[in-house]
Amino acid sequence: MKATILTIGDEILIGQIVDTNSVSIAKHLNAAGIVVREKISIGDDRAQITGAVERALRMSEVTIVTGGLGPTKDDITKKTLAELFRSDMRYDERVAAHVERMLAERGIDFNELNRSQAMVPACCTVLFNAYGTAPGMWFERDGHVVVSLPGVPFEMEHLMQDEVMPRLKARFALRQIVHRTMITAGLPESMLAERIAAWESALPPYLKLAYLPNPGAVRLRLSAYEVEGDAAAREIERQFEALRRIIPRNVIGYETATMQELVHGILTRRGLTLATAESCTGGTIASRFTAMPGASAYFLCGVVSYSNEAKTKLLGVDPDAIARHGAVSEEVARQMAEGARRTASADYAVATTGIAGPAGGSAEKPVGTVWIAVASPSGTVAVRRQCGSDRGQIIDRASAFAIALLRDCLNGN
Amino acid sequence: MKATILTIGDEILIGQIVDTNSVSIAKHLNAAGIVVREKISIGDDRAQITGAVERALRMSEVTIVTGGLGPTKDDITKKTLAELFRSDMRYDERVAAHVERMLAERGIDFNELNRSQAMVPACCTVLFNAYGTAPGMWFERDGHVVVSLPGVPFEMEHLMQDEVMPRLKARFALRQIVHRTMITAGLPESMLAERIAAWESALPPYLKLAYLPNPGAVRLRLSAYEVEGDAAAREIERQFEALRRIIPRNVIGYETATMQELVHGILTRRGLTLATAESCTGGTIASRFTAMPGASAYFLCGVVSYSNEAKTKLLGVDPDAIARHGAVSEEVARQMAEGARRTASADYAVATTGIAGPAGGSAEKPVGTVWIAVASPSGTVAVRRQCGSDRGQIIDRASAFAIALLRDCLNGN
Repeated sequence: MKATILTIGDEILIGQIVDTNSVSIAKHLNAAGIVVREKISIGDDRAQITGAVERALRMSEVTIVTGGLGPTKDDITKKTLAELFRSDMRYDERVAAHVERMLAERGIDFNELNRSQAMVPACCTVLFNAYGTAPGMWFERDGHVVVSLPGVPFEMEHLMQDEVMPRLKARFALRQIVHRTMITAGLPESMLAERIAAWESALPPYLKLAYLPNPGAVRLRLSAYEVEGDAAAREIERQFEALRRIIPRNVIGYETATMQELVHGILTRRGLTLATAESCTGGTIASRFTAMPGASAYFLCGVVSYSNEAKTKLLGVDPDAIARHGAVSEEVARQMAEGARRTASADYAVATTGIAGPAGGSAEKPVGTVWIAVASPSGTVAVRRQCGSDRGQIIDRASAFAIALLRDCLNGN
Repeated sequence: MKATILTIGDEILIGQIVDTNSVSIAKHLNAAGIVVREKISIGDDRAQITGAVERALRMSEVTIVTGGLGPTKDDITKKTLAELFRSDMRYDERVAAHVERMLAERGIDFNELNRSQAMVPACCTVLFNAYGTAPGMWFERDGHVVVSLPGVPFEMEHLMQDEVMPRLKARFALRQIVHRTMITAGLPESMLAERIAAWESALPPYLKLAYLPNPGAVRLRLSAYEVEGDAAAREIERQFEALRRIIPRNVIGYETATMQELVHGILTRRGLTLATAESCTGGTIASRFTAMPGASAYFLCGVVSYSNEAKTKLLGVDPDAIARHGAVSEEVARQMAEGARRTASADYAVATTGIAGPAGGSAEKPVGTVWIAVASPSGTVAVRRQCGSDRGQIIDRASAFAIALLRDCLNGN
């Protein structure tokens, strides 16, 4: 079973928005065993929409369209699909009542534009949008399905999950798709490929291997398309077990595993507590930990000590050390980590101090220079890292290095 | 001048990654006056790649391809393009020397897979990739250009900027594209459309208006394609000036303006300082401000007081108040803001305390309940906000509400 995803909107073609709708739709379809063959993004243009839908109908059994369903003049998807399926429009009382009620709750009058949202092609099945004013629409032609969904992400998500997927599963006999991803670190892509070449060559032909390099990590994905899911999943497990024996020190987890999840797991299992003291990373390390459910069990407190006064007052950093070595120095990083550990009575504390730029760099300490320290029951370690030249990149990399150093310390490396 | 963007990789079709490369490429092309007609994503499949490139050659003058250039077996873009352009492969000494040097810096041997990265189709112009091991490639056929770039975002970005765009500008006589976006708040899309209907109808036909609704904001974009840029830009300015007079209280800025940028601007201009005290938002507010260059001029410090002890010790919150009202309460939010303001000697302080979930909710204070307070020279204000049900959404919305409350206090509302 093949699918095409079609996202409509000039904002996609000019790079004004990042298309996350198609990511979410692809995940839903894959999870149900439907293979996405192609994703297409086009503008709010009648001829283009018609052309793309006609082509999708030829290429695949299922087409999911998002966008272009708003009440304003620039949105033409509904009208265009009605023409394509040679359908009249009808007024849907249930949609009208729902739109009117939604607006009334916000104290807004039901106007002519809202009335147009309750007009739907007579030939389609209306997919009721509980969270928005634009309904979804389900069209069929010659055994092919075309679904049109609003572009607002949480409305689209609700309709995919509650309306589209149950109908697709009922409508088609679907096989299964299995993906499983191993996250490795410490080996660049070409060395990793060389190391595991024999294993790769011996993979059964229905398993497809992909290498996905990230900064600091290479993900290895095994995929099996349209198979008996349980058997394929077991075979992938076996293959990853074998792979683990070849590169035991390089596997950091599976799927979307992140370094902070690894540390989160270690701290939680061992009942240890954590504090952070951040200068250049400005709260990013704290926010990465606190974004994870259960962080309150170990995360005691974080200090974003941007000013020197805050470093002294909240973390007990010696003002002389700042004067002598500068705020971006090994000594200050160490004192920040130790101060955070002491203040919070935490088992571990991690600290960063660096030059995020664009200003503030010097020949000796250029923009991107970051000192990172971890204080623990067994002492304090500090490292200097060069984290790039762009402010966002520096904050991101310094946070990643700091969390990795914390992992090493927790593992006693 | 029309372009097609083609991104290659199974990881895109299964929803494993968000395609940001095409966003960045679209911005570059638009800025140079090249209209992106379609974006297509396909898998690492020979027939699909050939079909998509052939179709792109028919549809547009320029095709930018990313992905599938890695050294491993799953990456087949280079080989497929060589076949499509009926070209032999040749060994490029400059690329080989560069790859060898890059690897040597990291202590890695040059192996057979790396050698294959220096093989390029004889018919293409090699685009030297200073930051990676896979070179870009520039093909021409019958006046059409096809460029193949690596999928690693910062390598792709470097090649687009330093190699592709200068060559496209030299190769074609390009006109201009002008986009300008106004950010509005306080009017839902249908009411806004009604309010500005007369203005919209009177727009000159070459200006295209788009409504882009976001949670809490509607963006209005005016676009002019392939025009004389200066005249179009001036006309858009005039139209937005007229629009501003129709909805004076609803315009919060232009382009990608965010609430934190607005606050950043006010604090910087007025020489005021800021501190944060975050519980449920866990450092997100601090990180939003500190992500902006120049934040160190006003951002003094932030405290992520996850534990009650941290609230008491670092912010001076009265333990009795926590015992009596609970950590998530108006009283504690007020004391956190006042404590942060006092500790940091800041002019303004913003505090959040709430239940980010998934655990910790009750009937009286369900997951998503957040108290937000701002302490300022003129006193302290606190509001309660319901911020949704998903942990990430709650953190995001609570941070946005807090920054908006800070803006209101700075504006004396």
